[in-house]
Amino acid sequence: MSHLNTIQTWLADNNLDIAYISDWKNIQYFTGFGSDPFERTLALFIFPDKDPFIFAPALEVEAIKKAGWKYPVYGYLDHEDPYALIKEHITELASPKHWALEKDNLTVVRFEALRKYFPQAEFSGNLSPVIEREKLFKTPEEIELLKTAGKWADIAFEAGFKALSTKRTEQDVVAEIEYTMKKNGIMHMSFDTIVQSGANAADPHGAPKADLIKPNELCLFDLGVDYKGYMSDASRTVAFGKVSDKAKEIYQVCLEAQLAAQAAAKPGMRAFELDKIARDIITKAGYGEYFIHRLGHGIGQSDHEFPSIMEGNELVLEPGMCFSIEPGIYVPGVAGVRIEDCVYLTKDGNEPFTHTTKELQIIPLD
Amino acid sequence: MSHLNTIQTWLADNNLDIAYISDWKNIQYFTGFGSDPFERTLALFIFPDKDPFIFAPALEVEAIKKAGWKYPVYGYLDHEDPYALIKEHITELASPKHWALEKDNLTVVRFEALRKYFPQAEFSGNLSPVIEREKLFKTPEEIELLKTAGKWADIAFEAGFKALSTKRTEQDVVAEIEYTMKKNGIMHMSFDTIVQSGANAADPHGAPKADLIKPNELCLFDLGVDYKGYMSDASRTVAFGKVSDKAKEIYQVCLEAQLAAQAAAKPGMRAFELDKIARDIITKAGYGEYFIHRLGHGIGQSDHEFPSIMEGNELVLEPGMCFSIEPGIYVPGVAGVRIEDCVYLTKDGNEPFTHTTKELQIIPLD
Repeated sequence: MSHLNTIQTWLADNNLDIAYISDWKNIQYFTGFGSDPFERTLALFIFPDKDPFIFAPALEVEAIKKAGWKYPVYGYLDHEDPYALIKEHITELASPKHWALEKDNLTVVRFEALRKYFPQAEFSGNLSPVIEREKLFKTPEEIELLKTAGKWADIAFEAGFKALSTKRTEQDVVAEIEYTMKKNGIMHMSFDTIVQSGANAADPHGAPKADLIKPNELCLFDLGVDYKGYMSDASRTVAFGKVSDKAKEIYQVCLEAQLAAQAAAKPGMRAFELDKIARDIITKAGYGEYFIHRLGHGIGQSDHEFPSIMEGNELVLEPGMCFSIEPGIYVPGVAGVRIEDCVYLTKDGNEPFTHTTKELQIIPLD
Repeated sequence: MSHLNTIQTWLADNNLDIAYISDWKNIQYFTGFGSDPFERTLALFIFPDKDPFIFAPALEVEAIKKAGWKYPVYGYLDHEDPYALIKEHITELASPKHWALEKDNLTVVRFEALRKYFPQAEFSGNLSPVIEREKLFKTPEEIELLKTAGKWADIAFEAGFKALSTKRTEQDVVAEIEYTMKKNGIMHMSFDTIVQSGANAADPHGAPKADLIKPNELCLFDLGVDYKGYMSDASRTVAFGKVSDKAKEIYQVCLEAQLAAQAAAKPGMRAFELDKIARDIITKAGYGEYFIHRLGHGIGQSDHEFPSIMEGNELVLEPGMCFSIEPGIYVPGVAGVRIEDCVYLTKDGNEPFTHTTKELQIIPLD
């Protein structure tokens, strides 16, 4: 069943007459056309039993058709009132009374415009959790894109490890990684690349600094790319030179937790159980207080999606779900370690999107 | 008068009891603390006659205090209901009936939460146009940041011109520019860097391609950096080798239009008049149909702000306003030229943020 069909069925099941999709990333998800309209109005309307249509700035109409959208698309010019036109297009098709909105996305000013033009309507339906749920399950096409994004993350790690030098700052190493990606036509990272050396890595929210890479310390990398709208996200921590026994111990505990969770992740278990597998190992080793975030987050069109792999989340994992497994141990003043792969769940297990070795790599000093 | 005072005065003048700022970039504007809270709630409440307060995820409370916020800040934990706590904090201070919201930003789900916890309230006030107006006028401190952002754009141009080579693609040249910035600790561009060679530049919406830089053609650069939350944005078009007389002619027309508009820009004139000065020159030269966008846009915390320098905009320009002056001529199959500086209006004229020469530069072939 296509993503559009899911919404049509949901509308019918809930006696709703129309769905208004307003988040441009979700419009991309349902239609294949992705472009941030900024202050302009871009909208997708879905009906339980009629063809959907897109309403868009006039300058985007051709691009929408080119993207393969086979249903109607209506454009508007900057001097026109978009909601007056939306009302015309909708009333040609239907007289919807019960509406579903993306309540996590639609702004009050647009909501008030709807209420003005559809004064008899009720806006009880909330699409946000429905779309969130639908997006949990990646199609085979989406998984292929995520695999390619993962492949580029592996290449980025290689570039980063090679760039380590006592003459380079953390920011320099970021520059080298992103330069390598752009030289290969990968023009967007999925988030700001993180390179943190030694004790700097103990701050899991820290940005790369103008500090030189420290010799004989661990160095943490967290990075990913945007490949055709799908993201990768992976972390590796390597030894730059000869690191202390303490650093090695922290690394091994984190690795054991990551490997155990990744080996265990499969359909049927609950999200919190997976978090617990990694957390128990780290806690038993005496580092529980230094594992200060959830085990993982969903990945797809962004790295802020569901499922959240954390304490308290009773969600049952199912095939097609994609998420990170990223235990971290951050000992202030000593070292920070995070090891992360994103995986997709298969029928009976999982496959990672990234393949860079997780055994402690020792990068020789320059 | 501080930005906060402006809102307090506006509330009092309009008999409103409370303002709820929800856009994190606007919270940064009013408080100095800037961080995208993603799905979490970050809010600033302003009263006409009482101290404001910030409501934030607990993990941000220390950072808010460190950023210099001297009024109260209240944190909440992920398992708590933010709007229940917001109600408590507000009712300790006041019993607001008439609210002002950022209607261009606040989502329906948050609006419904407000209506649930404040069932007697009226939400008639719209802060969005008020903040938009306030942001039109940059303070001396903001202008200093914009100047520094402009200085880095000049350095980026230099890196880009030096990188031109028949062995490099447009994407490669982007890679070189952004590498130079990151090596200097400038970790964010303000938008995706544009490098377009020859006829590719005739598509003003096009992204850099994997096409080699063409010898003896014009090459268009459009770029800017994010310096401490303030943006630069500038365009230059250079000749790579010996370009045709036609290309030179197009360049000179565009340059004349840019220089004339920049020489004319001063307080007291209307936005549309400035657009007309550049447009008339291009039209008179026979290229009017190829100047297919407005003359300029505002710049500050983003390059999607006001004023819009375009036909139909009657706004009177005033000192402190900052905007781009960027005529462009795009002749399909032939060449594209855009020349752009952002400027700030002084008492009787304007000053540009970027200083790279606008005379046609000829970069020798490699």
